[in-house]
Amino acid sequence: MTPKKPSALHEKDGIPQPETTSKKSAQKIKISRKKQPSTDEFVKKILTGDITFLSRAITLVESTNEKHLEKANEILEHCLPHANQSVRIGITGVPGVGKSTFIETFGKHLTGLGKKVAVLAVDPSSSVNKGSILGDKTRMEQLVTDENAFIRPSPSGTSLGGVAQKTRESIILCEAAGFDTIIIETVGVGQSETAVHSMVDFFLLLKLSGAGDELQGIKRGIIEMADAIVINKADGENIKNAKIAKVEFNRALHLYPPKESGWQPKVLTSSALLNSGIEEIYEMITDYISQGKETGFFTKKRNDQNKHWLFSTIEEQLKRRFYENPKIKELLAQEIKNLENGKSTPFNSAKRLLELI
Amino acid sequence: MTPKKPSALHEKDGIPQPETTSKKSAQKIKISRKKQPSTDEFVKKILTGDITFLSRAITLVESTNEKHLEKANEILEHCLPHANQSVRIGITGVPGVGKSTFIETFGKHLTGLGKKVAVLAVDPSSSVNKGSILGDKTRMEQLVTDENAFIRPSPSGTSLGGVAQKTRESIILCEAAGFDTIIIETVGVGQSETAVHSMVDFFLLLKLSGAGDELQGIKRGIIEMADAIVINKADGENIKNAKIAKVEFNRALHLYPPKESGWQPKVLTSSALLNSGIEEIYEMITDYISQGKETGFFTKKRNDQNKHWLFSTIEEQLKRRFYENPKIKELLAQEIKNLENGKSTPFNSAKRLLELI
Repeated sequence: MTPKKPSALHEKDGIPQPETTSKKSAQKIKISRKKQPSTDEFVKKILTGDITFLSRAITLVESTNEKHLEKANEILEHCLPHANQSVRIGITGVPGVGKSTFIETFGKHLTGLGKKVAVLAVDPSSSVNKGSILGDKTRMEQLVTDENAFIRPSPSGTSLGGVAQKTRESIILCEAAGFDTIIIETVGVGQSETAVHSMVDFFLLLKLSGAGDELQGIKRGIIEMADAIVINKADGENIKNAKIAKVEFNRALHLYPPKESGWQPKVLTSSALLNSGIEEIYEMITDYISQGKETGFFTKKRNDQNKHWLFSTIEEQLKRRFYENPKIKELLAQEIKNLENGKSTPFNSAKRLLELI
Repeated sequence: MTPKKPSALHEKDGIPQPETTSKKSAQKIKISRKKQPSTDEFVKKILTGDITFLSRAITLVESTNEKHLEKANEILEHCLPHANQSVRIGITGVPGVGKSTFIETFGKHLTGLGKKVAVLAVDPSSSVNKGSILGDKTRMEQLVTDENAFIRPSPSGTSLGGVAQKTRESIILCEAAGFDTIIIETVGVGQSETAVHSMVDFFLLLKLSGAGDELQGIKRGIIEMADAIVINKADGENIKNAKIAKVEFNRALHLYPPKESGWQPKVLTSSALLNSGIEEIYEMITDYISQGKETGFFTKKRNDQNKHWLFSTIEEQLKRRFYENPKIKELLAQEIKNLENGKSTPFNSAKRLLELI
C-alpha cells in the first residue's frame, strides 16, 4: 500500500506548536470543532496507509486534552497488532554535522529501494523541528515531497519523558500505517539520546572529521551507545581527514568491551552531498538486523525496551506525584539546606521527607 | 590523635556475615546482650579516634535491627559536624589486577606520610571482603597491622542501594574518628562503580597492560568516570607493554570531552610490588584536590553528591513501596505478558498499574 501524501502545509498545520500565532489559534479552534472520526474509522484509515489520518492520530497522541488522549490510547491499542514490523534507526549528531542532508539522502536511498520511511524527531532543537518552526522549506525538500516518506516534527512536550513517550507511540502509529523504516532524529547534545537509544534497533552517530578533540560537543556516553559512527562530509579536501578520523575511532571503539548484541560497532565515512557511502551504511544496518534476528537479540531488545518504558513511566509518575506535593516541596527546601550546612545526612533527610506521605 | 587498633580478629567478629555459622550466631547473641554504651559515649569515643567504638558504630549502621539503626542515626548526626575533612578515593579494577597489593602499598605510603587511612569495600566480592570471608591473612597484612590504618569489609546488604548507603555513613564515622584518607574499594565489573563514583572525590581505575582488548571485563562507562587510569604490575617484562598501554589510553581519553571539573584524566603506571609510581599517584591526587578546592569544584561536588544521595534514597523507597505492594505485583506480571504479546503499550500498562495506588 502506498501512503497518501497530504500537502506539507496541511500536515504542518495539524501540529500543536509552542508559539501561538493568530493563524495557529484559528487552526486549533477549527480542529477542536471538527467532528472527530470514530476510533474504528481512524484505525481502518491508518491501516490503509492514509497519511492524513496518521497525522491526525499523532496529533491526538501529542495532545494534552484528556479526551484526545483517551481516544489516542484506543487507537493505539487497535494499531498495536499491526506495529513492530519496521526497522527503527536512531540518528544523532551535533548541529552542523549535516543531519538533515544525511537523512534526506539516506531516506531517498531507502524509498528508491521501495521502502516506506517515516522521520520523527525527539528534541525541540532538532533540524526536523527547526525546519517546521522556521518554515524552512529547503530542509529535506526532496524527502518531504516523496510519497513514500513521512516527516513529523518533534512534539512540544514539557518534559523529555513526555516527548519520548509521544515519540514511541507515534512509532507504533507509523508502523501500523505501513512504514517499514522509522528514523528518529536527535541532536546529540542532551539527555534525549538515552531515550532514543531505548526506542530504536540501531543507533547511528554522525561525526565530522577535523583537527583537535574529535568528540567535542558530544555528550559523554553517546559513543558507547553507538552501533556505528559515520564520518559525514567525507568529500573534497575532507577525504583525507575522514580516513584518519576513521582509523582513530576504530581504535577507540576497540577499547570498549563487546556489546550485549555481540555486534562490533563500525566506523564508516559518507558524503551525503555526493551520495557516497550511503549504500554501505544501509547494508551494514540490514546486516545488523539479520544478525539480531538470527540470534534472537532483535526480539529480546524490543521486549527489554518495552519493559524499560513501562518501568520508567511508572517511576516518573511516582516521582512526579511525590515532588509536586506542596508539603514535600516545603520540607525538601529545608532539608537541602540542612545537607549543605552539614546538619543532616542524605538518609535522615530522606526519612523525614518520606514520613510525610 | 592516634586511633587505637583492636585485634584484627575482634574487628572482624563484630560484623554480621551472610553465612551463619555457630560461632557467628554465638557472637551475634553476645552483641545483642551486651549493654550498648550511650550515644554520647559513642560519639565521645569516636571523636578521640577509638577504633573499637568506631567498629561498633559501623556495626550499628550495618544492622537491620530498627533500634540499632535509630542509635546509628543519632551517632551519625552528632559525628557529622566533625566529618567531611578527608580525601575520599575510589579504587576499582577487575579481580586479578592487583587491587589488594596496590591498596596495601598505597596505604603504607600514606601512613608513612603521617596520614590516617581507612579502607572500605562496597562489593561482596571485593578483595577486602574476600579476605575476611576466607580469613586470608596474607591480604593487606602490613596495612592490617598498621595502627594508622583501618580496614573494614563490605557490609552484607541485600541491595546495592543499601550497601552504598551504609558505606556512605561509614565514611562519616571514619572521618569523625580522624581518618583523613578514605579508600573505597570496588571490583569494577558491576553496578557498584556508579555508586562509588557518587561518594568519592577521586576515582581511580586500575588496569593491566596486555595484548588484545585492553578494557575487556570492565563495564562500559567506567572509563568515563575515571579521574585516572593506573596501569599496574608495570615491572619486569611488563614495563614495555605498560608504556604502550599508557599511550593508547591517553589517546582514548583525549577523545572524550573535558570533565565538569576541568580535570584531564591522567594515565600513570605503577608496580605495587616494587613500590614504584605510588608517590606520583598520590601527588596527582593531591594536585587534583587542591585544584578542586581552588575552583570550588571540590565543595560543589560534595554538595551535589549529598543531593544525589538524598534523591536516590527517596526514589528507591518510593519504588520499593510500589513494587512490593501485592496487588501491584499481581497486575505487573500480567501487564508484562501483555507487552510481550503486543497487547498493550508501556504507557497504557503503566496507567493501569498506577490506578491501583
